[in-house]
Amino acid sequence: MRAVVMRGSSLVVDEVADPVPAAGQALVQVRACGICGSDLHFLQHAERLAELSSQVDAPVAAPLDLSRDIVMGHELCAEVLEYGPDTTGPAPGTLVTSVPVLLTMAGVVPLAYNNDYPGGYAERMLLSPPLLLEVPNGLDHRRAALTEPLAVGIHAVARSKIAAGEAAVVLGCGPVGLAVVAGLKLAGIAPVVAADFSARRRQLAEALGADVVVDPATEDVVAAWRRIDGRRPLVIFEAVGTPGMIATAMKAAPSRARILVVGVCMEDDTVQPFFGIAKELDVQFSFAYDPMEFAGALHAIADGRVDVDPLITGVVDLDGVPDAFSELAHPDRHAKILVEP
Amino acid sequence: MRAVVMRGSSLVVDEVADPVPAAGQALVQVRACGICGSDLHFLQHAERLAELSSQVDAPVAAPLDLSRDIVMGHELCAEVLEYGPDTTGPAPGTLVTSVPVLLTMAGVVPLAYNNDYPGGYAERMLLSPPLLLEVPNGLDHRRAALTEPLAVGIHAVARSKIAAGEAAVVLGCGPVGLAVVAGLKLAGIAPVVAADFSARRRQLAEALGADVVVDPATEDVVAAWRRIDGRRPLVIFEAVGTPGMIATAMKAAPSRARILVVGVCMEDDTVQPFFGIAKELDVQFSFAYDPMEFAGALHAIADGRVDVDPLITGVVDLDGVPDAFSELAHPDRHAKILVEP
Repeated sequence: MRAVVMRGSSLVVDEVADPVPAAGQALVQVRACGICGSDLHFLQHAERLAELSSQVDAPVAAPLDLSRDIVMGHELCAEVLEYGPDTTGPAPGTLVTSVPVLLTMAGVVPLAYNNDYPGGYAERMLLSPPLLLEVPNGLDHRRAALTEPLAVGIHAVARSKIAAGEAAVVLGCGPVGLAVVAGLKLAGIAPVVAADFSARRRQLAEALGADVVVDPATEDVVAAWRRIDGRRPLVIFEAVGTPGMIATAMKAAPSRARILVVGVCMEDDTVQPFFGIAKELDVQFSFAYDPMEFAGALHAIADGRVDVDPLITGVVDLDGVPDAFSELAHPDRHAKILVEP
Repeated sequence: MRAVVMRGSSLVVDEVADPVPAAGQALVQVRACGICGSDLHFLQHAERLAELSSQVDAPVAAPLDLSRDIVMGHELCAEVLEYGPDTTGPAPGTLVTSVPVLLTMAGVVPLAYNNDYPGGYAERMLLSPPLLLEVPNGLDHRRAALTEPLAVGIHAVARSKIAAGEAAVVLGCGPVGLAVVAGLKLAGIAPVVAADFSARRRQLAEALGADVVVDPATEDVVAAWRRIDGRRPLVIFEAVGTPGMIATAMKAAPSRARILVVGVCMEDDTVQPFFGIAKELDVQFSFAYDPMEFAGALHAIADGRVDVDPLITGVVDLDGVPDAFSELAHPDRHAKILVEP
């Protein structure tokens, strides 16, 4: 079958082995798969990630051979084709999504940061029947593919324990920041103040429900929050993920604020602990989601409680993926690009 | 009166103006005042602290003129001498302690990081009658002077929200780490694993109730926790306060651990956000205590629930303070040195 293969630090469209479902596995046809910022990071920083992962006894860690092909893509919606021997699940033809892991006898394998099982940048892939979620309400495959990134936002919001009566500032309105905005509005939080240098992304944040959007080039985001609120307990969501952003958030935060780091920074970063101490800050790191949050994200989209349409700014086929990776470096053009293999 | 004056980056024993109690103020005779690591930090890093403080809208911030004299000392036990006009409080001769702030018409002034009111490295000082706590149970002035550092530990423990059934690791057994150990045992936490390179300090940690002590030169402290427990949720208290310690804690922490930073690092620090994300860590910063925690610390000592005697490793008069500051650079010799003016 055809797939977009990460080979060293390049992406190439190539023929790869057809996946064959074993007992306990489903073969699915990928209908849509979102391109995630993590994939861009991974292509650039794979060696660093592998090195850091090897030092961590945590779910994200998986042994990886970077000299072998990897097929990424983990924000997926697919159609069931068939099952391995003695295996059942939703009928062939059913539209499904799944948390991007495969249950194997050797353990839980992350899709798509592994050498052995292709992710969603391919025509077909293997999924685990117990993890399949049928796409409800006739929701189309493009919107259903937004389940995974929305779940990231919902999890970050849940992890912050932000409650009614508290306010939120969101730093960065890329797909992660936008998912956080959507998660905050699902949780009934107001005001939500979202900041991005990109006018396009600020518009998307408004479309997803941000109460106020701010261009950090013209107004400090915490100052904007003080202007319109300034009295509620504040949670700052850091969704940029570049070096210096945690320090920026710690310096800007009011006393006793919580900072929820959901942007992934692979590099070393410099902070001033003094600001943390003087203001008794909490810096919490958020990663992924649990299966219930994932299912909740799917239903929030299917029930119409979150309109993900503004997030989808492009659709490409497999041949378009390498260019799409380059396009995503320009924040004024895109939020989420979907791949339809 | 005589006082130990911080003049530039030196400490000199000199005559300073006698404090005169105004209405709403008590004049007290300092009976004992502990030398705090913060004072050593302040003497070395006063300009940096003043610069950082000016960037923070937080309780610790106070305008400071470093070209003028400052009399430090904020871990105090004193005897009431007299009151200003129309002011009442505990009878003269009463042994008291107080949170180290002075209530003035201009605001709450931190004792002793200000230019106008001497702290406890002086014969006499001013306190605010509403904040005076009578020392109960015939507790002597030396032990009562340990109220403030113990309150720091009790607050850090409370702020971490550590609960029965959770475990604690304490990095660093200087006075702050030892106070955290005492606070953890007051809260009924077990096991408490405490680490310090100094054999003397490890003995003190055991005296204060640490279940296991570890020399980080020979065994990783989280490995030691895994050896004796390894299954309870873990809170890591960082009580060293030097650059690199937060990163060390983040790298060593198990998934979903909380890191409570109570050591004060004035310098820039480098962290790897990846470890925070991959393990969904919480990094919480702790500062000082509230008045109820302070009163609770006093009563814990006076009721015999915390034995602070092991903490007191030296007593000096005002003339001995400059040398005591140098002595405290050697962790194998001292925990807390008290000044008896």
